[in-house]
Amino acid sequence: MKIILLSGGSGKRLWPLSNETRSKQFLPLLPSPDGGMESMVQRVLRQINESPLAGTSITIATNVSQKDIIINQLGEGVKVVTEPCRRDTFPAIALSCSNLYLEQKCGRNETVIVMPCDPYTEAGYFNTISKMAGAIEDDAASLVLMGITPSYPSEKFGYVVPAASGTIAVEKEIIKVGRFTEKPSVEVAVKLLAEKALWNGGVFAFKLGYMLDIIEKFIHLDGMDFNFVHSHYTSFPKISFDYQVAEKESNVAMVPFTGFWKDLGTWNTLTEEIPSHAIGNSHLGESNDNTHVINELSIPVFVDGMKDTIVAASPNGILVCSKEKSEGIKSKVENLSDRPMYEERRWGTYKVIDSVQYPDGFKALTKTITLTAGKNISYQIHHHRSEVWTFINGEGLLVLDGNVTKVTRGDVINIRKEQYHSVKAVTDLTFIEVQTGDQLIEEDIERFPYDWDSVSVK
Amino acid sequence: MKIILLSGGSGKRLWPLSNETRSKQFLPLLPSPDGGMESMVQRVLRQINESPLAGTSITIATNVSQKDIIINQLGEGVKVVTEPCRRDTFPAIALSCSNLYLEQKCGRNETVIVMPCDPYTEAGYFNTISKMAGAIEDDAASLVLMGITPSYPSEKFGYVVPAASGTIAVEKEIIKVGRFTEKPSVEVAVKLLAEKALWNGGVFAFKLGYMLDIIEKFIHLDGMDFNFVHSHYTSFPKISFDYQVAEKESNVAMVPFTGFWKDLGTWNTLTEEIPSHAIGNSHLGESNDNTHVINELSIPVFVDGMKDTIVAASPNGILVCSKEKSEGIKSKVENLSDRPMYEERRWGTYKVIDSVQYPDGFKALTKTITLTAGKNISYQIHHHRSEVWTFINGEGLLVLDGNVTKVTRGDVINIRKEQYHSVKAVTDLTFIEVQTGDQLIEEDIERFPYDWDSVSVK
Repeated sequence: MKIILLSGGSGKRLWPLSNETRSKQFLPLLPSPDGGMESMVQRVLRQINESPLAGTSITIATNVSQKDIIINQLGEGVKVVTEPCRRDTFPAIALSCSNLYLEQKCGRNETVIVMPCDPYTEAGYFNTISKMAGAIEDDAASLVLMGITPSYPSEKFGYVVPAASGTIAVEKEIIKVGRFTEKPSVEVAVKLLAEKALWNGGVFAFKLGYMLDIIEKFIHLDGMDFNFVHSHYTSFPKISFDYQVAEKESNVAMVPFTGFWKDLGTWNTLTEEIPSHAIGNSHLGESNDNTHVINELSIPVFVDGMKDTIVAASPNGILVCSKEKSEGIKSKVENLSDRPMYEERRWGTYKVIDSVQYPDGFKALTKTITLTAGKNISYQIHHHRSEVWTFINGEGLLVLDGNVTKVTRGDVINIRKEQYHSVKAVTDLTFIEVQTGDQLIEEDIERFPYDWDSVSVK
Repeated sequence: MKIILLSGGSGKRLWPLSNETRSKQFLPLLPSPDGGMESMVQRVLRQINESPLAGTSITIATNVSQKDIIINQLGEGVKVVTEPCRRDTFPAIALSCSNLYLEQKCGRNETVIVMPCDPYTEAGYFNTISKMAGAIEDDAASLVLMGITPSYPSEKFGYVVPAASGTIAVEKEIIKVGRFTEKPSVEVAVKLLAEKALWNGGVFAFKLGYMLDIIEKFIHLDGMDFNFVHSHYTSFPKISFDYQVAEKESNVAMVPFTGFWKDLGTWNTLTEEIPSHAIGNSHLGESNDNTHVINELSIPVFVDGMKDTIVAASPNGILVCSKEKSEGIKSKVENLSDRPMYEERRWGTYKVIDSVQYPDGFKALTKTITLTAGKNISYQIHHHRSEVWTFINGEGLLVLDGNVTKVTRGDVINIRKEQYHSVKAVTDLTFIEVQTGDQLIEEDIERFPYDWDSVSVK
């Protein structure tokens, strides 16, 4: 059995903490068993490894912009398949299935589970997934999905209606699916509940061969390698898996899950699950009620006299909103910041602490950058900016135009446009970077090979 | 006639915009006639110059920590007398009167007006001050003060009760004062209003000689120079002018002011006078009611669903508070930040954009500094910190260990501990400063003379 974990989303609904590269599943806001905090994706991986699914090989299907943060949060051990561009769930699943077949050499008879990376749920959810895998292994249907018992007639979800013929296997809780209804009105949803319809949880099980046959309609796989599929990614139609596969399939079943399950997509729903009302340098007065303050800035936040309010601060901005109105912030904050001001990368993290643009186009941007011990940034040049690095903590090795030196606290390095440079952290290494130039974008970077293993310090 | 303007206060009641050196009278939040914004002290100076008092010589009595921001906001033309340490209004007024006598060579017969720098009031207030000066010139009383018509039985103000004998001069509105009552309970205040008591507005008029006689009880003035008084400042008792002078004086009168007057001491009262509900990079959603957002950070603030709320953000911190609760924030935010993160200086402004302290005591602090064209910082060394300057706008002259060079955009200067340095702005000059060391306090500065007039650039 193989698990494909879908990690997508651009995430302005949890602005300012979420941004273009750090969507909601990466925010470290949920309580973890060790008393600390974990992100949604860290929580799901932990839960899988505490369930009957423990040890199953996991492939994460994601966009290229999220690859670094996945590695930063989950480690180098996970398999990551990156879409070359954002499309939809059908192409993302097709790409990962191609990878299972062509690169991971799985057979057509392999059972595949596809699931989202951000359900907020309990152990029973993963037991239900085991049952779904069992149904596929028993050939109970071509496609098996998870039906979630609705808690109210929501307009936000897709509904799966049982077939009139009913249950396939009572003791195994496998129900034949009759039809699908996407995001109905409340009136229709009430009727659907009377028909015992369940929410479509976005969890699917099938044999790899089943999906390969569908992929073959768009890209011929036999004799090809995975890079070929990757480079022809746009041959897959931009459509959801539900529309392209599930709703066209007549032989489809579902296994119900009746336990706790919640979509933590807005500040309103997310804060219900955050036990601490003051995270970061946050200070609450005595007269607050149902108010959450989450502060990722270094300056203090003081809040008093607030009711049902979310206050969230990050290098991308500051949100002060009633929890009710927080459901609709996405469109309003879309254009407030034009770049991520905090990112987790393969090598560590950075945050932008200030930026300014002058009328003639000249720009300055100041970052705090921390490299994890043992990691390095690529050997690179910039065509449009200079950088000044002031090292403030830890020890590292710097390469500047081929020359290697040790760097530590108080060292200052002036890196001019077109100068080749890299740095590797010996211990966790922090420096302040002041960028100046006419274009200060992450994309202004040209990378070159560098053999860190052969480094000797002069 | 001479005016002494009292500028004091440490100003945590308008946190985070006010701090140790930028108290409430310096916040540029009031609408000015040119459509821009002005501070309370700028407003009062403008109003004086639009009144019958126009052209009167003004001496500002203040603490040494406010001298730079006064010059920055009012220009080099104003006379500033700085207390060597914070005491109270009696010593501050005594010091300024000593300065009028010993340094500005005023005669004992000079009429002196003492007034606060932060009343929010209208033109009639300054006409009343003219009447007070007239009463002193007519010898109507030894001390004349302004009585403000109470708008409600407040517990916050001092009250001045007319004498039973009543009016001294009806046509000139001069009323004999019977007694004073400081900050009464509401019940007592109601009775005081029935007795036609007025609020004590903290505006006083007297002959300079009257005050000199009182000063002589503590410091002998004749034959001394002003520096002698300044260096013996602690000989004056730490007490208010009301207690030390007004309440001991039997021959005291008041002139009533019946116009608009307000104490803008809290966010609640101040925001009532701020017409714009979104100042700085602030964005309001559609569902706010009586909510003010003032943002001095560069990152955006988005606010929605709020009612009767103040949101204020500055490099010192972020406040989110119901206007009602904002009256009591002073004690709660007292210890949230340990240094001013924004300051206006004689030479320009700086803001702290990030600071960090490591467990072993090593610190890093990053500032954006802007020097006004023509100004320079002093020639100085630091004993505990190094500084890296990256120039991002404007042109200047740098002195480093005696060597003068031109500096402009993109230049990077590494200033080590104990290195002599100064910089002068040719045009407005902005640079990013990264400080590192074991003590990063404004006080770690040793100043040396430097003759900028003789500079020739190599």
